[in-house]
Amino acid sequence: MGLVLFELRAAGGRAFSPYCWRARMALAHKELTPELRPARFTDIPRIGHGAKSLPVLLDGPIAILDSWDIALYLEERYPQAPSLFGGAAGRQFARFVHHWATTQLHPPIVRIGVADIWERLDAADQPYFRETREQRLGAPLESFRAQQPALLAQLGAALAPMRAMLVERPFLGGDQPSYADYVVFGAFQWSRVICPVPLLAADDAVQQWFERCLDLHGGLGRRAPAGG
Amino acid sequence: MGLVLFELRAAGGRAFSPYCWRARMALAHKELTPELRPARFTDIPRIGHGAKSLPVLLDGPIAILDSWDIALYLEERYPQAPSLFGGAAGRQFARFVHHWATTQLHPPIVRIGVADIWERLDAADQPYFRETREQRLGAPLESFRAQQPALLAQLGAALAPMRAMLVERPFLGGDQPSYADYVVFGAFQWSRVICPVPLLAADDAVQQWFERCLDLHGGLGRRAPAGG
Repeated sequence: MGLVLFELRAAGGRAFSPYCWRARMALAHKELTPELRPARFTDIPRIGHGAKSLPVLLDGPIAILDSWDIALYLEERYPQAPSLFGGAAGRQFARFVHHWATTQLHPPIVRIGVADIWERLDAADQPYFRETREQRLGAPLESFRAQQPALLAQLGAALAPMRAMLVERPFLGGDQPSYADYVVFGAFQWSRVICPVPLLAADDAVQQWFERCLDLHGGLGRRAPAGG
Repeated sequence: MGLVLFELRAAGGRAFSPYCWRARMALAHKELTPELRPARFTDIPRIGHGAKSLPVLLDGPIAILDSWDIALYLEERYPQAPSLFGGAAGRQFARFVHHWATTQLHPPIVRIGVADIWERLDAADQPYFRETREQRLGAPLESFRAQQPALLAQLGAALAPMRAMLVERPFLGGDQPSYADYVVFGAFQWSRVICPVPLLAADDAVQQWFERCLDLHGGLGRRAPAGG
């Protein structure tokens, strides 16, 4: 039975969600090609299965509602395909990187790009997005543009442990990427697809790693056009 | 042949070095009891083997000069004892946590306690410590005391990913501690042994994890008296 991935899209089909990119990369790592079903924020209630966010993976009658749970599901369901975690300790690693990315990287990245995201959403999604994000962030979306230099500095400092890792090995996973890489890839691909502000200098080890990730799995990430 | 661990000490025998505590915990995890040889900063040149910092582990004719290399050595040399990493992916996890602790946790912790460390060092070490640390930190050691509230807030924010992990599982390693835990343990034990400023509230998940770590391996960490 075929896999179906519901994926968040902006106007013109831009696939920008960091969590959906985690799922896309995890599926590709497992050598799986899901049927993609684009959806807007305002389409989510119609997906069913209790879905409140994207991605949603359908495997026949089974629905998996969260990118982390999708990774766990794929690892268990497809044990013969390349491992996403490399065992229990690697799963703890990926989970740490998940919490690290969510608490240390996403806050500056979303503020850098949030006004750009709003501009590029389908018109049907714009009121929902502005209302929920202005409530969450506590200020008008456009007000964060003036803070971009400070937010870029905050992001650059937060990336120090990853930069040190990438000086030693090409991926967080070591010689090959693991789900820990896809977690951070999602954050940078989010910005690449929908935000014109470069997050990193070309000679930053994290940018060079991101370029390597864009080339993985037949250039899956690079085929999504850069935004701006 | 017996193992010998050269360990940094302050006046009165206080074992405060975060890197030496990593090695102590790694040795205990491997069910090894080294002979401890206390040393001051100014004793290091007399240790030989090219040592420029502590800890130094001697295993017969072999000298291992760095806490990370000690962990790698113990994992390879004692494969039958409980694993420090849980495989290659877990080693990447521990290395990430090493870089995370070094770049995100140690900078505020050292500034919070650096004047206390100086006060508690053997008199022979005080001039060396003041000179090298004031050069590294760019200001008189005592000047950081006024920044303690901001440094504690910085530390609290940096700990967010660890706090999220510990809500899910008792240790970074999962149900059991791994070397990733010992890396962070070293940072908090450093402060506990030599600095009177509490770093965390009693109900913080990281503090509760630290208390669990103090009880590991027969209470190895707790036997070192709290400083202040």
